[in-house]
Amino acid sequence: MSSAASFRLEKDLLGPLEVPADAYYGIQTLRAVRNFHLSGVPLSHFPKLVVALAMVKQAAADANRELGHLSDAKHMAISQACAHVIRGEHHDQFVVDMIQGGAGTSTNMNANEVIANLALEYMGHPKGEYRHLHPNNDVNMAQSTNDAYPTAIRLGLLLGHDTLLASLDSLVRAFSGKSAEFAHILKMGRTQLQDAVPMTLGQEFRAFATTLGEDLEHLRVIAPQLLIEVNLGGTAIGTGINADPNYQALAVQRLATISGHPLKPAADLIEATSDMGAFVTFSSMLKRLAVKLSKICNDLRLLSSGPRTGINEINLPARQPGSSIMPGKVNPVIPEAVNQVAFEVIGNDLALTMAAEAGQLQLNVMEPLIAFKLFDSIRLLQRAMDMLREHCIVGITANEDRCRQLMESSIGLITALNPYIGYENATRIAGQALLSGRGVLELVREEQLLDDATLDDILRPENMIAPRLVPLKA
Amino acid sequence: MSSAASFRLEKDLLGPLEVPADAYYGIQTLRAVRNFHLSGVPLSHFPKLVVALAMVKQAAADANRELGHLSDAKHMAISQACAHVIRGEHHDQFVVDMIQGGAGTSTNMNANEVIANLALEYMGHPKGEYRHLHPNNDVNMAQSTNDAYPTAIRLGLLLGHDTLLASLDSLVRAFSGKSAEFAHILKMGRTQLQDAVPMTLGQEFRAFATTLGEDLEHLRVIAPQLLIEVNLGGTAIGTGINADPNYQALAVQRLATISGHPLKPAADLIEATSDMGAFVTFSSMLKRLAVKLSKICNDLRLLSSGPRTGINEINLPARQPGSSIMPGKVNPVIPEAVNQVAFEVIGNDLALTMAAEAGQLQLNVMEPLIAFKLFDSIRLLQRAMDMLREHCIVGITANEDRCRQLMESSIGLITALNPYIGYENATRIAGQALLSGRGVLELVREEQLLDDATLDDILRPENMIAPRLVPLKA
Amino acid sequence: MSSAASFRLEKDLLGPLEVPADAYYGIQTLRAVRNFHLSGVPLSHFPKLVVALAMVKQAAADANRELGHLSDAKHMAISQACAHVIRGEHHDQFVVDMIQGGAGTSTNMNANEVIANLALEYMGHPKGEYRHLHPNNDVNMAQSTNDAYPTAIRLGLLLGHDTLLASLDSLVRAFSGKSAEFAHILKMGRTQLQDAVPMTLGQEFRAFATTLGEDLEHLRVIAPQLLIEVNLGGTAIGTGINADPNYQALAVQRLATISGHPLKPAADLIEATSDMGAFVTFSSMLKRLAVKLSKICNDLRLLSSGPRTGINEINLPARQPGSSIMPGKVNPVIPEAVNQVAFEVIGNDLALTMAAEAGQLQLNVMEPLIAFKLFDSIRLLQRAMDMLREHCIVGITANEDRCRQLMESSIGLITALNPYIGYENATRIAGQALLSGRGVLELVREEQLLDDATLDDILRPENMIAPRLVPLKA
Amino acid sequence: MSSAASFRLEKDLLGPLEVPADAYYGIQTLRAVRNFHLSGVPLSHFPKLVVALAMVKQAAADANRELGHLSDAKHMAISQACAHVIRGEHHDQFVVDMIQGGAGTSTNMNANEVIANLALEYMGHPKGEYRHLHPNNDVNMAQSTNDAYPTAIRLGLLLGHDTLLASLDSLVRAFSGKSAEFAHILKMGRTQLQDAVPMTLGQEFRAFATTLGEDLEHLRVIAPQLLIEVNLGGTAIGTGINADPNYQALAVQRLATISGHPLKPAADLIEATSDMGAFVTFSSMLKRLAVKLSKICNDLRLLSSGPRTGINEINLPARQPGSSIMPGKVNPVIPEAVNQVAFEVIGNDLALTMAAEAGQLQLNVMEPLIAFKLFDSIRLLQRAMDMLREHCIVGITANEDRCRQLMESSIGLITALNPYIGYENATRIAGQALLSGRGVLELVREEQLLDDATLDDILRPENMIAPRLVPLKA
Repeated sequence: MSSAASFRLEKDLLGPLEVPADAYYGIQTLRAVRNFHLSGVPLSHFPKLVVALAMVKQAAADANRELGHLSDAKHMAISQACAHVIRGEHHDQFVVDMIQGGAGTSTNMNANEVIANLALEYMGHPKGEYRHLHPNNDVNMAQSTNDAYPTAIRLGLLLGHDTLLASLDSLVRAFSGKSAEFAHILKMGRTQLQDAVPMTLGQEFRAFATTLGEDLEHLRVIAPQLLIEVNLGGTAIGTGINADPNYQALAVQRLATISGHPLKPAADLIEATSDMGAFVTFSSMLKRLAVKLSKICNDLRLLSSGPRTGINEINLPARQPGSSIMPGKVNPVIPEAVNQVAFEVIGNDLALTMAAEAGQLQLNVMEPLIAFKLFDSIRLLQRAMDMLREHCIVGITANEDRCRQLMESSIGLITALNPYIGYENATRIAGQALLSGRGVLELVREEQLLDDATLDDILRPENMIAPRLVPLKA
Repeated sequence: MSSAASFRLEKDLLGPLEVPADAYYGIQTLRAVRNFHLSGVPLSHFPKLVVALAMVKQAAADANRELGHLSDAKHMAISQACAHVIRGEHHDQFVVDMIQGGAGTSTNMNANEVIANLALEYMGHPKGEYRHLHPNNDVNMAQSTNDAYPTAIRLGLLLGHDTLLASLDSLVRAFSGKSAEFAHILKMGRTQLQDAVPMTLGQEFRAFATTLGEDLEHLRVIAPQLLIEVNLGGTAIGTGINADPNYQALAVQRLATISGHPLKPAADLIEATSDMGAFVTFSSMLKRLAVKLSKICNDLRLLSSGPRTGINEINLPARQPGSSIMPGKVNPVIPEAVNQVAFEVIGNDLALTMAAEAGQLQLNVMEPLIAFKLFDSIRLLQRAMDMLREHCIVGITANEDRCRQLMESSIGLITALNPYIGYENATRIAGQALLSGRGVLELVREEQLLDDATLDDILRPENMIAPRLVPLKA
Repeated sequence: MSSAASFRLEKDLLGPLEVPADAYYGIQTLRAVRNFHLSGVPLSHFPKLVVALAMVKQAAADANRELGHLSDAKHMAISQACAHVIRGEHHDQFVVDMIQGGAGTSTNMNANEVIANLALEYMGHPKGEYRHLHPNNDVNMAQSTNDAYPTAIRLGLLLGHDTLLASLDSLVRAFSGKSAEFAHILKMGRTQLQDAVPMTLGQEFRAFATTLGEDLEHLRVIAPQLLIEVNLGGTAIGTGINADPNYQALAVQRLATISGHPLKPAADLIEATSDMGAFVTFSSMLKRLAVKLSKICNDLRLLSSGPRTGINEINLPARQPGSSIMPGKVNPVIPEAVNQVAFEVIGNDLALTMAAEAGQLQLNVMEPLIAFKLFDSIRLLQRAMDMLREHCIVGITANEDRCRQLMESSIGLITALNPYIGYENATRIAGQALLSGRGVLELVREEQLLDDATLDDILRPENMIAPRLVPLKA
Repeated sequence: MSSAASFRLEKDLLGPLEVPADAYYGIQTLRAVRNFHLSGVPLSHFPKLVVALAMVKQAAADANRELGHLSDAKHMAISQACAHVIRGEHHDQFVVDMIQGGAGTSTNMNANEVIANLALEYMGHPKGEYRHLHPNNDVNMAQSTNDAYPTAIRLGLLLGHDTLLASLDSLVRAFSGKSAEFAHILKMGRTQLQDAVPMTLGQEFRAFATTLGEDLEHLRVIAPQLLIEVNLGGTAIGTGINADPNYQALAVQRLATISGHPLKPAADLIEATSDMGAFVTFSSMLKRLAVKLSKICNDLRLLSSGPRTGINEINLPARQPGSSIMPGKVNPVIPEAVNQVAFEVIGNDLALTMAAEAGQLQLNVMEPLIAFKLFDSIRLLQRAMDMLREHCIVGITANEDRCRQLMESSIGLITALNPYIGYENATRIAGQALLSGRGVLELVREEQLLDDATLDDILRPENMIAPRLVPLKA
C-alpha cells in the first residue's frame, strides 16, 4: 500500500496535517494527542464519559433538527453514529489524554470528529469529507466546549453512579451478613487501644455496615441532586450567544430522555459555566467513603493481628503466601490494598480541589483534571470495594474462644460488676488484678463478693452489651 | 494572704495536686493544662462549644433527676451552674488546650469540674468539697466522654450555624446588590484569560451571588441533617453499659428542648461513637465555600488589576496605603486576605481528614483536633466573609467606560456579528484587526458590511448577552 | 483625663484617624487591625519574627548612616528603639493579625511605626511627631515591604531554629537512653501487624532515635542553607530601584553581623522577591518530621495497648485518669496529642503549598500566611516534642516477661530454627502449632529435633537478632 | 494445540493454579494479578523500576555465589536472565498492579518468578520446573521483600533521575534563551497585580530560569544523597536473620558496581526497613518543582492574556484552534496542561504522605503506593516540562510596543522620577494622571518639571531597572 493511501490530509486554522486513513478522529484530535502526552490515560479508559459525550451530541442534534437547523439526512447519520458509540463501539477512537489544556476542547473535538466521520461513512462519504457533514458546524452545532463538556462529565458520572452504589451496597450486605454470623460472640471493646467494656463481634461488624450504609444513602440521594443541573445551551460563557432561544430547553429535555436521568437546565448559566461546586462536593463524598474504608481496614488488620503476638480475634482469608522466609505467614493484603486506594482517592480530592480553586473569570480551564480525578476515584473505590468484599469480608472467620478469653481476662470486665459490688470494691479488685496478673472474675469469686448465679446473670451476653436496670441488692 | 489560702488540695487516681483557690476548674483540668501546652487556644475561644457542653450537662441532669438517680437539691444546683455558663459566664474557666490527648476527656472533665464547683457554691459549700456534689458521679452521671463530648461538638456547631449562615447570606445580598447596580454595564467575558464574548458586569456579579447562594442553601439544609443525630446515652462504647434503659431517650429529648434544635438519638450507637462522617462532610462543605470564595477573590483581583497595566474594569475601595515607595498605589488587600483564609480552611480540612482516618476500633481519639479545626474554619470563614462584604464588596465601583472600550476594541466582538456577516467575513475581519491593531467594528463600518442601524441593533446590550433568533438577512 | 488626651491624630493617604495616645504603633497599624480581624493571632505571638524585624530595621539604619542618608541623631534613636525590641520589650505593640492582605505591608509598617515612635521618645519628642523622624522615610529608608519582610521571615526562622533543634535533639537522646535501657529485652518484631522474627526492644527504640536523628541532621544542615539567602536591597520588585548601589551589600553584611547568622545577598533579586521555594522546602522538612513523630506515636500506642487485650509490651507513664467509668484505665494521651499536632502540621504544609502556588508575577501576596504557618508548625512541633519527651518517653517501662512470653509463643520463632531443622520440618511444626495452639519450641523439644544445648544456643539473644553463619550440622 | 498444553500447573502454600504456558511469571504473580485489579497500571509501565529489580537480583546472586551459597551454573543462568531484563526485554511479564497489598511481596515475586523461568530456559529446562532453579530459594536467596523491594525502588529512582534532570535543565536553558532574547524589552513590573515599577521582560524570564535552576541544583545534589543508602541485607525486619554476616556488604557493593550508583548500606537496618523519610523528602522536592512550574504557567497565561482585553505582553505559540465559535481565538493550552500536572503531583505528594504516616512497627506496608506515586510524579513532571519547552517556551514572542506603551502610560513610572522631582510633585502628578486618564510623563513634560535630556536619561532602560546613585540636583 502506498504511503499516500495510509493518510488523509485535513486542515484547520493552523494548517494541514496527515491523519491516519483509518482513524475516525480528525486533525484536532491528532493535534491534541501530539500536544498532550502526559498521564497516558486516554478518554476511552472511562467508557461512561465517552457514552455521555455521544448522548450530548445526540441530544443537540435532535434539538437542532426540531428547530430546523439540521437536515433530516444529517440528523439520521449523526444519530446512527451516536448510537454505535453509546453501544460501546469505536471507543478506541477516543484517544486524547485525560489531562489536557484547553478546558476540554480536545475532548469535545475528539467526540465531534469521531461522530462526524462515522456519520460520513453512513452517508456514503469517505472520512474527512467534512463538506458533507462537519464536526463543528453540524455535530457541534449550537454547542461550545464550555457547555457540552461539563454536561457530558455530569452525565458520565450519573451513568456510572449505579455501579458504584451496587458495589457499596454489596459490601454493606457482606458486613451485615458477618454481623449476623458473629452476633453471639462476646468480646472486649477497645477505646484508645485500651481495654474498655464488652460488646459482641456482631455489633462491631454491624457498625461497619451502618457507617457504610450511611454513605450509600448519602451517595444515593445527594450525588444525583448535585449532577442533574446542566449548563447545556449556555454556549461560550453562559449567555447563550448565537443560540436559538428555544434550543436550551429542548436540548436538555432530549438529553434527559436519551439518558434516562432527570436532567434540568441550570438557572444561572453564567455561574454554571465556571462553577465546579458539584464536583468538589461529589469528590468530598468519595473522600469520606475512602476515609471510612481506610478506618475499617485498619480495624480489620488490628483485629486479625498476630496470630500469636497480636489481637487475633478474627481471621482474614489467606489470599497469597506472605513470606518466603517465614513459613505459614499470611498477611492482610486485601485491606492493605484498600488503605492505599483510600490514600490515592484523598490525594485525588486534593488535586481536584486545587483545580477547582484555579478557575478564572468565566471558565475553569482545569476541568479536564477534575473529570479525570473523579472518574479515577470512582473506579478505584468500586474495584477496591469489590475486592474487599469478595477476597476478604465474606471469608472472615472468628476466633470465638480467643475473643471470650481476652474478655474474661480483661480488667475492663470489672465495669460491668461496678453497680453490684460498688466502686470501691471494683477499684480494689482492678488494682489487685493488674499487680498479680490474675483475672478480675477469679478474684471476685475468690472473695465471694458475688454468688455464681448472680455473676452468671451479669455476664450473660445480653446483659453486658446494652443498657440495663440494675436490680436492687438484697 | 498565706500560701495555704491561695490553693486547695484535690486528689485523683494519680495523687494530690494544688489547685488555685479561686479556680472553678479542678485537678483533672489542671493536669490537662500541664500535659497539653500545644496550640495555645483554650476551649473558651469557642463559646458555642462551651455553651453546648453546659447544655449537655443540663440535659443529663434533667434525665437523671426524672429517673430518680439525682436528688432535687443537686439538680437545682447543677441547673443554676449550667444556666450561668449558658449565659456566657465563667467561660474563662474553660482553660484546656483545644489539642489534647484522651479523646476529649479533659474537655469533658473541665466542664464537669467547673459546673460542680459552681454548683457547690450555690449549695453553700466551698469549691472542691466534692463529697457534696461530685464532678464525675453527679455532673457526669450516666455519661462518658465518648458520648457527652461528640454530642457537645455537634450541638456547638449547630449553635454557631445561624451566625455563619447570616454572614454568608449578607455576602450573597451584597453581591446581588452590586449585580443590580452593574446590570447595564456591558463588558467582555473572558475564558482562559482570553477575550471571549460580551456580557454585563451585572451578570458577572450575579454569578458570584448565585454560586455562594448555592452554598448557603447547601449549608442551611444539609449541615443540620448531619449534626442532629447524637450518640448521647451510648456511654463508653455505644452499648450503653450501666445506663438506665430509659436514659438515652429522655436525655436527648431534654437536650433538644434546651437547645431548640431537633436532636435525635443515633440508631446505631456503636457506630455513632466512633463515626466522624458528619464532621468530614461538614468540613468538606466549608472547604467548598472556601474554594468558591478564593475563586471569587481571584476574579476581583484580576478585574481590578492595573490601574494602567491591568484589566481595571472595577475599583475596590482603598483600605490602606499600598506602598511607601509608589505614590497612589492601593492594593486589593481584602480579597488577598480572603484567599489566605481559604487556604487555611483547606489545610484545616486536610488535618481533619487525617484525624478522621486515624480512628481505631470503638473510638476516634483524634476528635479534639476535629472539633478544633471545624470551629476554627467556621470562625475564619465568617470573619473573612464579613470583612469581604464590609470592607470590599459594598464599596466596589465600576469603570464603565473602560469596560465598554475593552469590549469595543475586542476581537471577540466579531462573534456577535458572525450570523450577520458570515463566518468568512468574520474570520477575515478578525485577522485584519489583529494585524493592524484596529477594532473590528471600525473595520466592519469601513467596509460597509452592515449599516449603522443594524450594527446598533446587534450591539444593543440585551441582544448581545442572551440567546437570540437571528433575523433573516434581506 | 480628657477624651482628647487619650488619642492622638495621625494621617495617611486615606485621611486622618485617632490612634490611642499610649500606642507606639501608628495609623497604618491601626488600619490593618481594623481590616484584618481573622486568625486572632497577632505578630507578638512569634517573638522571633518581631526580633528579626527589628534587626532588619537596625541593619538598614546602619547602612543608611554609613552611606550618608541618615543622620547620626536619627540613627542613634532608631538603634536604641531596635535594641529594646530585640531585647524582647514592647512586643505587645506588634498587634497586626498574622493573616493579612498586602503581602506583609502591615507587618512592616507595624515595625516601622513602633520603632519610629520609640525613637521619637528617645529623642525627646512626643509619639506621632513624625516630622522629626518618620516611619517610612527614616525607619523604612531604602526598604520596601517586598524585601524587608521576606528577609525578616527568613531571619526569624533562623533565630528560632536552634530551639527547635534542641528539642529534637533532646528527644533523640531520650529515645537513645531507652534503647540502651531495653537493649537486653528480647521480643518479636512485627511486619504488617503479623508476627515476624525476633529483635530487641532496644533495637526498636534505637530505630526511633535513628530516624529522628536523621531529621535532626537534615534540619541542622539544610534549613540554614535554605534561609541565609535574603533579598534585602531589592526594594519593590528586585530591581533595587531608587536604592543606593552600595546599599544592598552593606545592609546584608550588617544584618549578618547583628544576627550572628551568615546571611548573604540573593544572586537574582527579581527571582528572590517572589520565590517561596525555601519556605516550601522548610515546611516539607517539618512535615516529614511530623510524619515520623506520628508513626512513632502510633507504634507507642500499639506497643502499650491492652493491658489485657492488646500487645502490652511497654507501659507509658500515667498522666491523667483515663475514665470515670472504668477504674484503673489509663490512656496514652501524650502520643495521641502528638498525632494531632502532626496532622495539624501536615495541614499547615498544605495551606502553605497553596499559598506558594498562588504567587503572581513579581510578588507572592500570600507570604503572610506562609510565615504564619511556618512559625506555627515550628512552635507546635517543638512543644509536642518537649511534651512527648518529658511526659512520656523518659517514663516508659518495659514488660520484659510479656515480651519474652509473646516471642516464645510465636510461630515466627521457627524462622530462627529453619537453618537447623530444615524448611520441611519447620513448615510442619508451624502448621502443628497453629492447629494445636501450642508453641513451636515445645513441639521441637517434644520431637527431639534439637538437643537443649543447641536450642539454647540458637535462642540466645545475640544469635537471634543479627546475621549469623549457620554452623555445619554434625 | 490442546487446552492442556496452554497452561502449566504451579503450586504454593494455598494450593495449585493454572499458569499460562507461555508466561514467564508464575503462580504468585498470578495470584497477585487476581487479587489486585485496582489502578490498572502494571509494573512494566515504569521500566526503571523493573530494571532496578533485576539489578538487585543480579547483585544478590553475585554475592551468594561468592559466599558459596549459589552454584556457578545457577548463577550463570540467573545472570543471563537479569541481563535481558536490564536490557529492556520481557518487561511485559511484569504484570502486577502498582497498587498492591503485601508491602511489595507481589512485585518481588513477579521479579523472582520471571527471572527464574528465564533462567530455567537458559539452562534447558521448561518453565515452572523450579526444582532446578527456584524463584524463592535461588533468585530470592538471602533476600526478603522487605529489603529487596525498597532497595529496588531507591535504585529505580536513581536510574530515572538523570532523565528528569535533563528535562529540567533543558527547560532552564529555554527560559535563559528567552531571557537573553528579551533583555532589551522594557515593561512594567507588577506586584499584587497592580502596576509597580519598570523592569525588562528579560529579567522576568531570567527569574523563571533562576528559580527552576535552583530546583535543578537541589534535585541534582540532594536526591542522590537521599537515595543511595539502601537496606539490602536486612532481610525480614533489619536484623539480617539467617543471612550470612558477609552478605550485606558484598551485595550492596555488587549493586553499586552493576548500577553505577555509589550505593551504601544503611547504618541502622531496623530503622531503614520501615523508614520512608527519603521518599517523603524526594516527593516534597517534586512538589516544590510542581509549585514553581504552576506559578510560572500562571504568569505566562497572565502575560499572554488578551489579545485585547488582557495584558498581552507576550504571545504563546498557537498549538491548536481554541474555539469553533470565536474566529482566531487561540488559548494557552500548554501552560494550562502544566498547571493540571502540577496539581496532580501535589495530590500524589499527599497520598504518599498519608502512606508514609501509616507505617506500623517494623514495616511500612503502604510502600507500593509510595513507589507508584513517586514514579508517576517523576514521569508526569518530565513529560510536562518537555511539553512546556517544546510546544510553548521556545516559541514565545514579545509584543515590544505593547510592553513599552503600558509602561509609559503607567502611573508607577512616577516612582523613577521621585528622586528628581520630589515626593510632593510626584504625588500630585500621580493624582492628576489618575483623574485625567493622562500619562505621568506627559504631565511632567507639560509642567516642564524636567528637561527632555534629564527625562531621557532617567528613562533609559539601564537606569530604570537597577540601583542608581541619584545625581545631585542643580
